[in-house]
Amino acid sequence: MTEPAPVFAKGVDHERLTEQLRFILETDKLKRVLRRNMLVDGSRRENSAEHSWQLALAARTFAEYAPPGTEIDHVVEMLILHDIVEIDAGDTFVYDTHESASQPERERAAADRLYALLPSDQKARARAIWEEFEARETREARFAHAVDRLAPMLANWHTEGGAWVRHKVTRAQVLEKVRVISDGSEALGAYAAALVEDADRRGYFARSASPAG
Amino acid sequence: MTEPAPVFAKGVDHERLTEQLRFILETDKLKRVLRRNMLVDGSRRENSAEHSWQLALAARTFAEYAPPGTEIDHVVEMLILHDIVEIDAGDTFVYDTHESASQPERERAAADRLYALLPSDQKARARAIWEEFEARETREARFAHAVDRLAPMLANWHTEGGAWVRHKVTRAQVLEKVRVISDGSEALGAYAAALVEDADRRGYFARSASPAG
Repeated sequence: MTEPAPVFAKGVDHERLTEQLRFILETDKLKRVLRRNMLVDGSRRENSAEHSWQLALAARTFAEYAPPGTEIDHVVEMLILHDIVEIDAGDTFVYDTHESASQPERERAAADRLYALLPSDQKARARAIWEEFEARETREARFAHAVDRLAPMLANWHTEGGAWVRHKVTRAQVLEKVRVISDGSEALGAYAAALVEDADRRGYFARSASPAG
Repeated sequence: MTEPAPVFAKGVDHERLTEQLRFILETDKLKRVLRRNMLVDGSRRENSAEHSWQLALAARTFAEYAPPGTEIDHVVEMLILHDIVEIDAGDTFVYDTHESASQPERERAAADRLYALLPSDQKARARAIWEEFEARETREARFAHAVDRLAPMLANWHTEGGAWVRHKVTRAQVLEKVRVISDGSEALGAYAAALVEDADRRGYFARSASPAG
């Protein structure tokens, strides 16, 4: 990639703006990180950048199902930032226990490199928000996880089982993710539970666990 | 597309949640709307959903270059919502005068249909935010436009002229868009102007205007 052209604006810290531009250019790569689930119409796999956009939209649309006092703007900021680590770490399929084992380490190294492209004040903020998401302790982080887990369930349900079928995921495995949704939003958790029961009736789940690939 | 499974959560308005889910499922189609510019690495055309994600990220990263008092959370909400009309109206290439002529009408019809999928209170809010973006009168709308115009310029510059070269765009045409950027952010406008001068030196622009295709 060629270097950005020089900047001539008065009163602007050129070095700082150049760092910010490099960050935006580097994060363009998130558009090429492919997830396991398909688009809702089944035409192709979803990428992590468009997934992040949909989560931001869904967080606001479903805001009323977050616990009282949840700051939705903060949830949106978290969801816009949270997947950037996948540029280096790749998308980890939530039902792949092998991949999931090394995920924290891979994503930490990715966060070290990627958020560090930003000027130091912005780096600290982005890093803190990502850590908050990962820790899943605040209302905002829990609700962000709820939306993040619900979206692929919708896509899988609407593509006749999608990644669940292709990767032989069991009902029990999906119900673990439903607990993450319930933890962030009672209403969305109940909806997800109903969706899983319905998917089970339709035969979308494997009878016994197998290593997801 | 199959209908969403029934919902059994206590105290939740099922009809309302179903409308919200249908909106999210319908807006999944934005991932299949292709823009004229390529990804920064030149590997393929960008889609409008991943573009919206990048704008949300860029708006926050470049927030300090917005006029004092600009509410960045509102800019982000605007950018997440603003391209949804393209699901029906398609992406309009900003240098295509023929397409641009019919754009307002096409996008208004699209907004009528798409935002109306939401429950009426949310529909009114989404519609108002989209109208605010289109009117380009508030600081927030102007800054949103600045970021929206700058991103494809970066992509075109980094792909050796990209869509400018392919569609025979002139320097004068691009400078019109630079004015839109300057109108929302002095610093980003100055950067964009420098980028255009550099692109001109590199021979990325056509010598005379031709109908963009």
